[in-house]
Amino acid sequence: MFKKVLIANRGEIAIRIIRACRELGIKTVAVFSEADREALHVRMADEAHYIGPAPSNQSYLSVPAIITAATASGADAIHPGYGFLAENPFFAEACRQWNIAFIGPHPEAIRAMGMKDASKALMKKAGVPTIPGSDGVVESEAEALRVAEEIGYPVMVKATAGGGGRGIRIANSPDELVQALQKAASEAGAAFGNAAVFVEKYIQVGRHIEVQVLGDQHGNIIHLGERECSIQRRRQKMLEEAPAPFLPEETRQRIREAGVRAARAVGYDNAGTVEMIYDEMTGEFYFLEMNTRIQVEHPVTEAVTGIDLVKAQIRVAAGEPLPWKQEDIVIRGHAIECRVNAEDPDNKLYPSTGTVTALEIPGGPWTRWDGMLYPGYQMKPFYDSLVGKIIVWGEDRSDAIAKMQRALAEFRVEGIKTTVPVHQRILASSEFREGRYSVEWLEGFLGIK
Amino acid sequence: MFKKVLIANRGEIAIRIIRACRELGIKTVAVFSEADREALHVRMADEAHYIGPAPSNQSYLSVPAIITAATASGADAIHPGYGFLAENPFFAEACRQWNIAFIGPHPEAIRAMGMKDASKALMKKAGVPTIPGSDGVVESEAEALRVAEEIGYPVMVKATAGGGGRGIRIANSPDELVQALQKAASEAGAAFGNAAVFVEKYIQVGRHIEVQVLGDQHGNIIHLGERECSIQRRRQKMLEEAPAPFLPEETRQRIREAGVRAARAVGYDNAGTVEMIYDEMTGEFYFLEMNTRIQVEHPVTEAVTGIDLVKAQIRVAAGEPLPWKQEDIVIRGHAIECRVNAEDPDNKLYPSTGTVTALEIPGGPWTRWDGMLYPGYQMKPFYDSLVGKIIVWGEDRSDAIAKMQRALAEFRVEGIKTTVPVHQRILASSEFREGRYSVEWLEGFLGIK
Repeated sequence: MFKKVLIANRGEIAIRIIRACRELGIKTVAVFSEADREALHVRMADEAHYIGPAPSNQSYLSVPAIITAATASGADAIHPGYGFLAENPFFAEACRQWNIAFIGPHPEAIRAMGMKDASKALMKKAGVPTIPGSDGVVESEAEALRVAEEIGYPVMVKATAGGGGRGIRIANSPDELVQALQKAASEAGAAFGNAAVFVEKYIQVGRHIEVQVLGDQHGNIIHLGERECSIQRRRQKMLEEAPAPFLPEETRQRIREAGVRAARAVGYDNAGTVEMIYDEMTGEFYFLEMNTRIQVEHPVTEAVTGIDLVKAQIRVAAGEPLPWKQEDIVIRGHAIECRVNAEDPDNKLYPSTGTVTALEIPGGPWTRWDGMLYPGYQMKPFYDSLVGKIIVWGEDRSDAIAKMQRALAEFRVEGIKTTVPVHQRILASSEFREGRYSVEWLEGFLGIK
Repeated sequence: MFKKVLIANRGEIAIRIIRACRELGIKTVAVFSEADREALHVRMADEAHYIGPAPSNQSYLSVPAIITAATASGADAIHPGYGFLAENPFFAEACRQWNIAFIGPHPEAIRAMGMKDASKALMKKAGVPTIPGSDGVVESEAEALRVAEEIGYPVMVKATAGGGGRGIRIANSPDELVQALQKAASEAGAAFGNAAVFVEKYIQVGRHIEVQVLGDQHGNIIHLGERECSIQRRRQKMLEEAPAPFLPEETRQRIREAGVRAARAVGYDNAGTVEMIYDEMTGEFYFLEMNTRIQVEHPVTEAVTGIDLVKAQIRVAAGEPLPWKQEDIVIRGHAIECRVNAEDPDNKLYPSTGTVTALEIPGGPWTRWDGMLYPGYQMKPFYDSLVGKIIVWGEDRSDAIAKMQRALAEFRVEGIKTTVPVHQRILASSEFREGRYSVEWLEGFLGIK
């Protein structure tokens, strides 16, 4: 087992990883930017290294800065968390070069899943359903228009190097498509340094269902069930559940199996998530992308399976075989996660900054808080607005909803605004309770479309 | 279902009950003494009633004050929590008289189990193993000496109306017995208004194992497994686990079945706990007493069964049948609870008072906090020193121990002293880890015998 793990991340996920390491008896090294000197992850780790100014490309995205901190501290492994360098194959390779274990899949798996057009072709070959579309990068406007004509509007233009909802445009007509191609390409060029885009059918009433998979370095791959993550705004998830409600049992099984097939196609050997779009109209589902890292919403899977995903990541990265076979995985009850973002619900969810002057965290039965806040913490504008997550488990979905409503009512923070009131509105709505929602629903419901 | 529940208690258990009610959509009424005006349970309830001065007999133990608050607020049920009036059959009867549901067993069950000598006779009849002894109240010194001679020293003198470790004396010789009889009788007379005592064999290397039972008003009774509660000081539990480690499987089954038999003997119809002493030397176990209420340590059972015991209490008290059969109960993983008491570990665990100036509650996976503290809370000397409980769940005992050590390290409170450092010593000890302990062990380990 590793002796010392450097956590190449910040915020709640850095704290989550510190906790897992501590429980495994592993020393932890935090890294921090100028803006994060007073961050909770820095205070909680066994040691902490300054890695650069606030802008991420000079600190949390700097491969040399991270590798230097790791070698200086004598870390024998790096956990990348999510975001930042988590899905950067060059970083995973740099770790390998420096003889530091990367707590994630092998770089080839990251690379194979990172290029959206190539991964789609790979999935098609592996028998995972994919969305009808251009089957690769579109080389010209004419080609895009021809493909769109063939599969029918609306279509989606996606950056091949995209992720997290960026570099995506929807077009309902040839005119819109021409515009969308330009915008998606320029956005992708700026964000990912790669302007290539592809075109595919846009699923209008789709639900986001994702399969949690877990592999090891001995060829074992299992799934830990699926999550429902359709409650999104600006293509960012806000609330997630496990298992997915309102899904026919037969479809649930097929989605889970497809998730394992996807992972197997790249010889996957750590925790990963296969994202699917489920078309309610037709009952079909299609591969969207695979995230080759831990997800923000991993705790709902932990709650229903009893499996600690971050510890499992560390163990398999150290070469241990998975201690579970597929038939050992039992899904029990229902879990919900609400992301607490520092955003202003009265101002279109714009980021909220300020100093936390008072804080009350929900407690009691089956209520988990993974957060980075403390009284006195200064919320700055540099990073993602996620400041914590409330996760509840209940014997069934309605019990979990009641628990979450109770927990949200207990949550109190002063000095910053949060998304808690938004969650309260979602949970109280008949659409959410009765499953009348798609990935498009929330923005309309909140009037922030 | 009830519309409004009055919680005839304070502290963490009042908060626990408020949470359960909120999740069931039931309004809550708190009661508070003069000393508890600023208590968290008062702030969390939907409404709160002042019931009298700080001394418990003028407030939390005052049946008229509680009944008046219930009728005034229009509560249709009362949850008594633990301690105070929870095991007072007259209170349960008063509730019945006033047409208020008592969330607990019927008064006859409370009464039958309340008198320690009578309950022992009842258990013997029901085929539950009992400790050899006087089979009822000893009427004279001579009778006590004769019984002790027969069963052999050491013996225990117990108040028939006792509970919570009070009114108990141990004697190793006839001389000590004569003294013990006097002391136990006078202590019991003062504490319970009933000086009657009985004598039984003292189990020297005993472990405290208790069975959680759950009944309904339709004759169904099941068990939810057992708990290990041997880590005690001054006969007060400090740390509890579920399931009981270091117990032969065959004994575990027999103890669980005996628990159900005990409950069945009194037609038990709510949540209750059958406490046993397990003699490691002989492998035998004996009935100690039945607690006809929710226990402090109920969360460890909740963690391993996935069943919300307080909600179950409320539901069966409202007449609902148990939704589970015995075969539905699955024990998964291992749970540990550490009681956080406001006591000074450097001064023989004497109560610690003061104002909480800073507070950090442990979070993260499978970590539960049931507590009454907040920054600014003034810890006063009037009540029990329990201020909260940390509960963790792990895939096995060693994982749960690692989680608890991690959680305890995250806990920070300033302004009062707590038992957290004591728990850290216990968890680090080889005696605890390897199961080399009895109910006597902790006091010796801490040097507070």
